Amino acid sequence: MTVRPAGPPGVPIAPAPESDDWEALLGVAPTFLMYVLSFVFLAIYWNNHHHLLHATARVSGGVLWANMHLLFWLSLVPFVTAWVGDSELTPLPTAVYGAVLLLASVAYWILVNTIITHEGPESRLRAAIGSDLKGKLSIVIYATAIPLAFVHPVIAGALYITVAAIWLCPDPRIERRLNVERT
Amino acid sequence: MTVRPAGPPGVPIAPAPESDDWEALLGVAPTFLMYVLSFVFLAIYWNNHHHLLHATARVSGGVLWANMHLLFWLSLVPFVTAWVGDSELTPLPTAVYGAVLLLASVAYWILVNTIITHEGPESRLRAAIGSDLKGKLSIVIYATAIPLAFVHPVIAGALYITVAAIWLCPDPRIERRLNVERT
Amino acid sequence: MTVRPAGPPGVPIAPAPESDDWEALLGVAPTFLMYVLSFVFLAIYWNNHHHLLHATARVSGGVLWANMHLLFWLSLVPFVTAWVGDSELTPLPTAVYGAVLLLASVAYWILVNTIITHEGPESRLRAAIGSDLKGKLSIVIYATAIPLAFVHPVIAGALYITVAAIWLCPDPRIERRLNVERT
Amino acid sequence: MTVRPAGPPGVPIAPAPESDDWEALLGVAPTFLMYVLSFVFLAIYWNNHHHLLHATARVSGGVLWANMHLLFWLSLVPFVTAWVGDSELTPLPTAVYGAVLLLASVAYWILVNTIITHEGPESRLRAAIGSDLKGKLSIVIYATAIPLAFVHPVIAGALYITVAAIWLCPDPRIERRLNVERT
Repeated sequence: MTVRPAGPPGVPIAPAPESDDWEALLGVAPTFLMYVLSFVFLAIYWNNHHHLLHATARVSGGVLWANMHLLFWLSLVPFVTAWVGDSELTPLPTAVYGAVLLLASVAYWILVNTIITHEGPESRLRAAIGSDLKGKLSIVIYATAIPLAFVHPVIAGALYITVAAIWLCPDPRIERRLNVERT
Repeated sequence: MTVRPAGPPGVPIAPAPESDDWEALLGVAPTFLMYVLSFVFLAIYWNNHHHLLHATARVSGGVLWANMHLLFWLSLVPFVTAWVGDSELTPLPTAVYGAVLLLASVAYWILVNTIITHEGPESRLRAAIGSDLKGKLSIVIYATAIPLAFVHPVIAGALYITVAAIWLCPDPRIERRLNVERT
Repeated sequence: MTVRPAGPPGVPIAPAPESDDWEALLGVAPTFLMYVLSFVFLAIYWNNHHHLLHATARVSGGVLWANMHLLFWLSLVPFVTAWVGDSELTPLPTAVYGAVLLLASVAYWILVNTIITHEGPESRLRAAIGSDLKGKLSIVIYATAIPLAFVHPVIAGALYITVAAIWLCPDPRIERRLNVERT
Repeated sequence: MTVRPAGPPGVPIAPAPESDDWEALLGVAPTFLMYVLSFVFLAIYWNNHHHLLHATARVSGGVLWANMHLLFWLSLVPFVTAWVGDSELTPLPTAVYGAVLLLASVAYWILVNTIITHEGPESRLRAAIGSDLKGKLSIVIYATAIPLAFVHPVIAGALYITVAAIWLCPDPRIERRLNVERT
């Protein structure tokens, strides 16, 4: 009997249109696009999380808590997705959406480092992650995007999509290393 | 500590009738039948997914993303089920329901081919799948059904049920092969 | 990468009282008791399902479908629980609640027999299950209770609770056998 | 094919603010803080549950039922969280929130003791748990906090947070033992 380790919490469910015509279908388009964006972000975490934990040999209490901390911020994604969708991309919800993504990416960075510290000098993950350029870049982009949401929400939105584009493939650094070691 | 790989997202929950008489119970019949149909489609994917992944020896980043892509379209099933149920089988929701099923079946086809390509020439799955007649036939039927929903939704509905009937048993090709290899 | 096999779908979530006084708390009592009863029924299936699948050596396509069939009826438990709770134990919802439990217990019986047939003469499960008195008795009690719900819902309710009481401990037949074999 | 053992049920989902300004965001602050507190409590159980079940060698029917009993009380956390959040920390909801936490901690204590009894004298868990000071202390604090909620809800709230603080790190007793044994 083992406890199922937490994957990212469920993606937000898109609401059904209010009537059966094209206008109603187009009316849910903004909400739907937010749903797609949030699905992509959660999928990025889910896939990288898969690679991360496969590269992790030992789990400590600290690792479990760092994982819970990441899940906390991811669990707020449905909350902020609904808010941005309802408000149709106004400054404050857009900034708060970015803040949740920023805090999730910081939490992911903490999780990676907690695992590396726990595994000690011979950590395979440490070698695989390297300088973690992507992770650091994401944090910088989010921190830049959040104040810019108050200049114009579209600027922030474009920066969030940029981060998604950077991460869209699961981390080839880890994958390559592990494949090499498997051979 | 392993990440639980994603099974298909939950089936949509049928709503409770509004009063405690037979009329109210019959009133939820269209919604309930849509619920049954969507449950069957998700169960087909779930079972075939089970067979598919048991026949998969190696997972790459591309396979994880192909899987996420399938889950994206399946995650929209509750959305379109609710819409068809609310609108009581009018053309547009019926066509959109079929479009989601079509895109899910294309995503399944991409997932199968991503796994086969990743596994290389000695792929057991390649041999087991063969020409994938069922998969190709489903895509053709869906693509035919969607425009016919605007002629009459019942025609499209009948074609969707036809696809479900074709897939109702999990793929015996894969199952037989694997049993043979196990012996 | 394995697909997580389906456990029973989630239990229905009890609604919060409408104000912060004792009267409001007592007002949700009928709904809450229905929640407890449904939780117990789902827990019985969940625990017995755990024992059942641990005693199962081989899975076929038929077993997967028999499992899906059981999950279908269990997925309707939140639906009928909400209906009985809303209607405060009137005949029709109480009868439909019983019908779902009856169909779930028939589905469980089909699942057990599909596994036994698939495993063939040397099935450990066949020996462990024996004559399956409990399973047959439950079906008889449900079939009796459903028409009696139209005489008085409380009679049906008492019979449902009787079935829960019969099953409340996980099947010691299977458990004992497996412990013996493990030794 | 194995049944996924039940992890704690999902954390309650925070609702989206009603408009897109700072006032609406601050308006959801009490609900959000309750969400954070309940997330922390569920995370504590989840992490300790992880350690507990990793230290458990054998599962009996009694252990499965003790686990279900714990899950029952944890499944009520969203219910009482929503009630306290809606009522903005009035006495009765605050006391009922504490009662659910008390009953969950009693259920956890029962689960631990059921496992220890089932494992017999050579139980590693028995040695690891020791006198279970934390578990007993939590029960005493909850039992004190519940009546004090009727004096002032803030007193009860402060005591609940005290218990969370006591448990915030996963049980180092179990962790240390197991690490020692692994070496």
